[in-house]
Amino acid sequence: MSADPHPWARTLEGLHAQAWARLGRGVHDRHATARHPTLATVSAEGRPQARTVVLRGVERGSATLQVYTDLQSAKVAELRASPFAAVHVWDSGAHLQIRLQAEVTILSGVASAAIWAQLPQHGRSAYGSAPAPGAPVPAALDYSKTPDPSAFAILSLAVTEVDLLHLGTDHRRARFRRASGWSGEWLVP
Amino acid sequence: MSADPHPWARTLEGLHAQAWARLGRGVHDRHATARHPTLATVSAEGRPQARTVVLRGVERGSATLQVYTDLQSAKVAELRASPFAAVHVWDSGAHLQIRLQAEVTILSGVASAAIWAQLPQHGRSAYGSAPAPGAPVPAALDYSKTPDPSAFAILSLAVTEVDLLHLGTDHRRARFRRASGWSGEWLVP
Repeated sequence: MSADPHPWARTLEGLHAQAWARLGRGVHDRHATARHPTLATVSAEGRPQARTVVLRGVERGSATLQVYTDLQSAKVAELRASPFAAVHVWDSGAHLQIRLQAEVTILSGVASAAIWAQLPQHGRSAYGSAPAPGAPVPAALDYSKTPDPSAFAILSLAVTEVDLLHLGTDHRRARFRRASGWSGEWLVP
Repeated sequence: MSADPHPWARTLEGLHAQAWARLGRGVHDRHATARHPTLATVSAEGRPQARTVVLRGVERGSATLQVYTDLQSAKVAELRASPFAAVHVWDSGAHLQIRLQAEVTILSGVASAAIWAQLPQHGRSAYGSAPAPGAPVPAALDYSKTPDPSAFAILSLAVTEVDLLHLGTDHRRARFRRASGWSGEWLVP
């Protein structure tokens, strides 16, 4: 019988800490699974929308995440209509599904200028597009990307709930809520 | 200069066909990326929800997907309140993001009985749980899973829109809509 490869999954505290550690790795290691979470939002018509984003910041103390985006993107319009997001990561190395609920603040203009100033030149080209992202164009490459600080926005995600599912010999699922001071509870997987 | 590894990304038809081929692989190859898409729904409170699911069926002709679920799961309750789903796959091998919009029909009871009858015994244990999935429990393993045909449901997803993003030397994005007979159009990435 082999040793349990994920002993942290046996306790609420261990699971919770592991999830934040894996998210943190996503910011600093471009090969980590949590580098590219799926961000789900709700459109003005009430439809779910989901797309890959790049995780740019994680702070466990305040339970916040940061994602950068073009201010003209559909996700910004959706978040202006409904400021709620879900973040999803399936970390295959940890056999861990991380699901977050969050309330999103959109920072742009002077509020995002300090971060813009720190971006390397090649990192800026994702922000600023003509026509806007998602606009129909006659041919595939009929667009240009020109770095534009006024098109740069930071999504600040204040996490309100963390739902974790570990798949092992036994499956374990737990939920942690900001409103309960992050005290966790076990759920049926 | 190396040859373009993904020449299919240069045409609308090529992109569209590649997306359905990748989805089809998900059904038949347990190691394919599309085996485990993220399914996003909207809760009764209007919040986005996202989780990993297993892709069980894909039919390009009718543009439908199939996913199995426990009838007591939160996603079923959410889909009863709002029958719209988004499906998300990031296929790293193809450098392709697949985003689908779909309307969902929940099949259970007699409508799912024929599929249930074909499930292997070990495949049935995911459907039927006491307490229900997502219910709080005092300890992690205070639950039992007992195969229960009345807890088995098929989510039939009628795809209404396909949004594809290919990341290459040049990025290309295209959208295909059922309402337009699946004729595609290029979008700004």
